[in-house]
Amino acid sequence: MFVPALIERKRDGGALTAAEWRELLTAYQAGAVPDYQISALLMACFLRGLAREETAGLLDGMMASGSRLAFGKLGRKVIDKHSTGGVGDKVSLILAPLAAACGVAVPMMSGRGLGHTGGTLDKLESIPGFRTDLSLEATRAQVEKIGCAMIGQTPEIAPVDKKLYALRDVTATVECVPLIAASIMSKKLAEGLDGLVLDVKQGSGAFITDAERSLALAKTMIELGEDRGCPTVALLTAMDRPLGRACGNALEAEEAIMGLRGEGPEDLHEVTLAEGVEMLVLAGEKDRAAARRRLEEALKSGKAAETFQKIIEAQGGNPRCVDDPSILPQAEEVEVYYARKSGTIQRVEPRAIGRAVVEMGGGRRKVEDAVDPTVGFVITARPGQVVHASEPVASIFAKDADGIELGRRALDGAIEIGDGKPSALPLIQGRVTVKGVERHQ
Amino acid sequence: MFVPALIERKRDGGALTAAEWRELLTAYQAGAVPDYQISALLMACFLRGLAREETAGLLDGMMASGSRLAFGKLGRKVIDKHSTGGVGDKVSLILAPLAAACGVAVPMMSGRGLGHTGGTLDKLESIPGFRTDLSLEATRAQVEKIGCAMIGQTPEIAPVDKKLYALRDVTATVECVPLIAASIMSKKLAEGLDGLVLDVKQGSGAFITDAERSLALAKTMIELGEDRGCPTVALLTAMDRPLGRACGNALEAEEAIMGLRGEGPEDLHEVTLAEGVEMLVLAGEKDRAAARRRLEEALKSGKAAETFQKIIEAQGGNPRCVDDPSILPQAEEVEVYYARKSGTIQRVEPRAIGRAVVEMGGGRRKVEDAVDPTVGFVITARPGQVVHASEPVASIFAKDADGIELGRRALDGAIEIGDGKPSALPLIQGRVTVKGVERHQ
Repeated sequence: MFVPALIERKRDGGALTAAEWRELLTAYQAGAVPDYQISALLMACFLRGLAREETAGLLDGMMASGSRLAFGKLGRKVIDKHSTGGVGDKVSLILAPLAAACGVAVPMMSGRGLGHTGGTLDKLESIPGFRTDLSLEATRAQVEKIGCAMIGQTPEIAPVDKKLYALRDVTATVECVPLIAASIMSKKLAEGLDGLVLDVKQGSGAFITDAERSLALAKTMIELGEDRGCPTVALLTAMDRPLGRACGNALEAEEAIMGLRGEGPEDLHEVTLAEGVEMLVLAGEKDRAAARRRLEEALKSGKAAETFQKIIEAQGGNPRCVDDPSILPQAEEVEVYYARKSGTIQRVEPRAIGRAVVEMGGGRRKVEDAVDPTVGFVITARPGQVVHASEPVASIFAKDADGIELGRRALDGAIEIGDGKPSALPLIQGRVTVKGVERHQ
Repeated sequence: MFVPALIERKRDGGALTAAEWRELLTAYQAGAVPDYQISALLMACFLRGLAREETAGLLDGMMASGSRLAFGKLGRKVIDKHSTGGVGDKVSLILAPLAAACGVAVPMMSGRGLGHTGGTLDKLESIPGFRTDLSLEATRAQVEKIGCAMIGQTPEIAPVDKKLYALRDVTATVECVPLIAASIMSKKLAEGLDGLVLDVKQGSGAFITDAERSLALAKTMIELGEDRGCPTVALLTAMDRPLGRACGNALEAEEAIMGLRGEGPEDLHEVTLAEGVEMLVLAGEKDRAAARRRLEEALKSGKAAETFQKIIEAQGGNPRCVDDPSILPQAEEVEVYYARKSGTIQRVEPRAIGRAVVEMGGGRRKVEDAVDPTVGFVITARPGQVVHASEPVASIFAKDADGIELGRRALDGAIEIGDGKPSALPLIQGRVTVKGVERHQ
């Protein structure tokens, strides 16, 4: 393998074979190929693109660097969901125990907050004692026992993805559809799935704000999944405003617990159930209406909340938080935020909200930063809602007066009040399968 | 300076400012920016291109990493020539002393063989004792004393270029017009030139075989020179066959000495004089015919050969080789090569000849390889020449029987004999200045 010749071929618009990707990534993982050759190749991939077959070859090469989860006789279908990331998106915390309560096995591997978006791991870790660093073996055993585990990327799963991602992060090669798709799918397919539901966020708060590119990402991930024997379906959901009301780790964990008790905000409930229906259908449920009824019933009966308690307990956390969310860490300072004027809420800009949570200490600016789980917002204002001047529209949670001030300024910028009807994206815009896109408009 | 943001801008088709290039390359030279970020940036440059202004900024940044030659009261114009590289191209060995003999100061900095092409330094070093590793200070003193020095790239001249080139070599980012142009010009302009003549090779033996791209390279170098106050002119010359007869280091040194005595092959003489005229015109000679007469006279009178002797002596070599080329190192094995059939020489493929010289030991496959100065070819066959079967058309010089066999097979492939009139490029195809291209056809 002469690496410059591979780079040259990609540079000139050609493709690497699956065998070449595999050999190259194996050598890279072993330290036998330097970062500077891989970064040049990644930039060529970014600018030249990768066709379907080559993306699959890249994916296989990434997966070959690590292990796969393998379940024994489980008697349940193994299904996971993945969100492309947004602000206030705590769906996973509800959906994983909910689907498990409905008989699906969910070996959910999630990430941390990235940029302006929150991460499921950070939200889970706001629960006192909760550990997400389970080994593959412990994950397997827990899924077999209680139907669900909620973990971080283990060192055994696609380790070269971690190395590639760190390199992409510092060489401006992150926002590339096939590289993103292969990175996500290398981890998800290593979970040994029978099906996968993708939540592809749309709008200004999404990682990819361009609708066409985010659809291309959905399609690429679906192709990769289907080609590898994992039926995959994507929902296109709104991220032009935060999902639900809470933004910030412990606040979102609390809202997720409310959601598990059927007391959460309507939009959060709707997105959770829509994804849940897809999971149950992938697991074999033929009737979509029946799937929805099963999910509603698991919430109502308390079975979903109970499953979450089992997961928390198995992973070292305090399960009492499901009955008493007040044991979650609480912010030092809380202040109510009032509408600056009367009018109609035109926008609640999610990116500004997400950035403010990070700045207030609720996310990382550097990998080694500690996260303050208590800070964030609960925003009750929704686009289209009519408000009066000085009516409460949000609460700010911070560790000190500076944090409150930071939060107030962020809300001043993010909550736009005006006249007329705002244009907001439909909550669920469409559904994408290997057969194409169905728009829900 | 946040490097990923610079890479991102270039990736998306934007440009770095001169100040940014300068800061970035200074930091890179100092080891404060890792190779993997620069290689990603170079790939983005390769695929997105650099406009005239940005190329100049890159050039300035490269020059800022090192020193410049500065001459005292010289009373002579400082002019150099640069060839984009070919097979059998020993023009520099004749032209540097010849122009110096005509009153031009020539601080000639050259390179080593690269790929299938030979290098002036390797040819000079075939002269016993000849040293090319002069310091900038010694170079300046020698040019002031005898009008010419012939040296390699010193560590003081554009050191970041050396680092960048080594990185480009292993990341498939070499063949990029603005990067090549800035690399060449960063070294040439550091010589403190009043003018520069470029020999831009055309045809299958050139580095850039595509005529349009090699013209783009010529234009880019001319723009860079002119923008930096160094009048620059390029000749487009034929490299669809070797220049002259000798290919191989000592053999070429010998042919250059013959050329300095007015006894070299006609094509070599013509190219040398054409470039010499340009050098004298850049140095102030108004009359091109007078310039040519002055060059002819310097060859005829022995003044050019005498100047070469002074250069050799000043740089530690044995100046007697000019009078007696037999003291140059001689090959162990010599064999005459005969035409395989009767007919007209259709082609003498330079790339195959150049590669064979390398394989026979006359070039490097790895940087640390030693070069055997004795091996190579003297090829008398020229395209268009009518030959009879078994007529001698070349001699092979090698270190052993295997080398002879290698050489024979290379000539079998390189010398094509057939019927009809071959199509060969005109020896001098055109002249390029900042005003445009004049074709000589």
